[in-house]
Amino acid sequence: MYPKELNYRMPAEWDKHERTYISWPVQASMVFPDNYESVSRGYAEIISAIAEFEPVTVIVNPEELETVRQMKLGDNVTLLPVRHNDAWLRDNGPTFVVGEGGELAGVNWKFNAWGGKYAPWDLDDNVAPQILEQAGIGQFDAPLVMEGGSIHTDGEGTLITTEECLLHTNRNPELSREEIEEYVRKYTGAESIIWLKRGLSGDETDGHVDNIACFAAPGKVIIQVCGDPQDENYEITRENLRILENTVDAKGRKLEIVQIQQPPRVDYDGSRLTLSYLNFYFVNGGIILPVFGGTAAETDKLAEQTLAGLFPDRRIRTVNGNGVIAEGGNVHCTTQQMPARRA
Amino acid sequence: MYPKELNYRMPAEWDKHERTYISWPVQASMVFPDNYESVSRGYAEIISAIAEFEPVTVIVNPEELETVRQMKLGDNVTLLPVRHNDAWLRDNGPTFVVGEGGELAGVNWKFNAWGGKYAPWDLDDNVAPQILEQAGIGQFDAPLVMEGGSIHTDGEGTLITTEECLLHTNRNPELSREEIEEYVRKYTGAESIIWLKRGLSGDETDGHVDNIACFAAPGKVIIQVCGDPQDENYEITRENLRILENTVDAKGRKLEIVQIQQPPRVDYDGSRLTLSYLNFYFVNGGIILPVFGGTAAETDKLAEQTLAGLFPDRRIRTVNGNGVIAEGGNVHCTTQQMPARRA
Repeated sequence: MYPKELNYRMPAEWDKHERTYISWPVQASMVFPDNYESVSRGYAEIISAIAEFEPVTVIVNPEELETVRQMKLGDNVTLLPVRHNDAWLRDNGPTFVVGEGGELAGVNWKFNAWGGKYAPWDLDDNVAPQILEQAGIGQFDAPLVMEGGSIHTDGEGTLITTEECLLHTNRNPELSREEIEEYVRKYTGAESIIWLKRGLSGDETDGHVDNIACFAAPGKVIIQVCGDPQDENYEITRENLRILENTVDAKGRKLEIVQIQQPPRVDYDGSRLTLSYLNFYFVNGGIILPVFGGTAAETDKLAEQTLAGLFPDRRIRTVNGNGVIAEGGNVHCTTQQMPARRA
Repeated sequence: MYPKELNYRMPAEWDKHERTYISWPVQASMVFPDNYESVSRGYAEIISAIAEFEPVTVIVNPEELETVRQMKLGDNVTLLPVRHNDAWLRDNGPTFVVGEGGELAGVNWKFNAWGGKYAPWDLDDNVAPQILEQAGIGQFDAPLVMEGGSIHTDGEGTLITTEECLLHTNRNPELSREEIEEYVRKYTGAESIIWLKRGLSGDETDGHVDNIACFAAPGKVIIQVCGDPQDENYEITRENLRILENTVDAKGRKLEIVQIQQPPRVDYDGSRLTLSYLNFYFVNGGIILPVFGGTAAETDKLAEQTLAGLFPDRRIRTVNGNGVIAEGGNVHCTTQQMPARRA
């Protein structure tokens, strides 16, 4: 059985959460292990920011449990010992789906560390089942390599993703586009999928959508744009914009498109950081928005103002986006929301 | 010689800064030494938030220099080895004053750890001179025990303070109110002083003004208010409000008053925390605002909206105000701004 035939669907991220799950970083798997302390601090800042709004459960390797406990992350934060190789629970955590009666289930996708880039990943592929088991929530095993960061949903039947990631030969080389799309529909309950082309220049996830576009509401999409024709993201964005302008969602609606200017380019250790305001994360009553400071002061403010205008009922909680970005992701990548259970 | 006769004046906090100074916390002097790691993380969050907007110099005990360096607080953060007993540079740092030609000088007040509450304080009393010497800035020694957190200025000749603190017998018992006022005028360059009565209930600084009221602009004051008549802060606030409503500033202006609702009461280890949104701090192009989350979600949002409305050109950067508050203060208490030098 798969979720769709049982009338389960993946809710929008802005629906009420029961809690947020997040994995504690693991020094051994880090791209820059010398940054472990500052990266841990970045995680702690994200966790305490989310905990201002809703409970947080942190996945911690058992041998680090005492160390993280000593950090006193606060009353709203629970530690859950689960062995894992790396952080980024967005990508290896379960995708929660909600049944007609409000009951929860979890989709356990196959995980191969972004196309086999960072071995080992055996523990990470087994994190979602342990979260679901601990929470007493039923599990659907999807026969598809997929990361949570590669899809966004409007909660009303439309998904948005990128060809660069979902059709990449390092994920599901044996499956056709049609087969992949069918699996995604079956396991998220979606009706239709909007296929963007490429993700941000240099994004080592192979173009996760959660750095380039997301829904603000059904029928409304936010996209990060680039005003400099010399920048690779310029063509990437224009191509995606054209797709969004010429598509309709599962309900037949044309999309309203909101643009957010990208932050200025920053390189670290010879590579471009994949800076994105769209890696923000919805929490109950708020939004956790990574900002970058310095040369990004102007775009930081514009991004925050745009979100404040779009979401007048939410408090926009900025966090320092430089804390964890050199490891390849940001706020949205670190989190996985568990929807609130309805009676 | 004293600053006023040389036409130096203390500028408003919102004037452009060259940098922010902040002291790294010292475990031995902490009220709750077991919280050292989480308090350090709170400081690191404040420092990195400020560094999004302007350079930060962190005062560090020499033996901790390497440890703090390992924390990699970022390119915009400089460490300065200076021996100190405790943190809270607002209170023992220099008060910078600006001359007619834009040149800087620093006022070195006497410091006795908030009326002798936390011995030893000999090193802390000697921090301001070392900061000034290192920066190559001239020093005025004020013969008055005073903390920076007990005064706010509008930059146009008006100071705001509290009787509870400045007239407390544990500070300058040998001086009359008139003598104290005269010293404050001489060393800040102010013309007139608005005397509020008491600070927040339970504030162990004996009522620092930087938890209850501040200027938003010349002629405009923000005050934190309390709507619950059962709460001790209710009467405290009403009394201060009446004073503000019936006073004029150095320019003869009646004051416009903006109210911000206080966060809900929180106790820690049997004592009430002195939670205040007015412990925010101006930085170049922004404001660093402590928020508290949980039961304070509503007031957090109101405080942020009020400041965003008052300061449309500044980005309101919230930080988790629970990080350091159990030690007795918050963002404003930890910081001391150095004004930008003009050519």
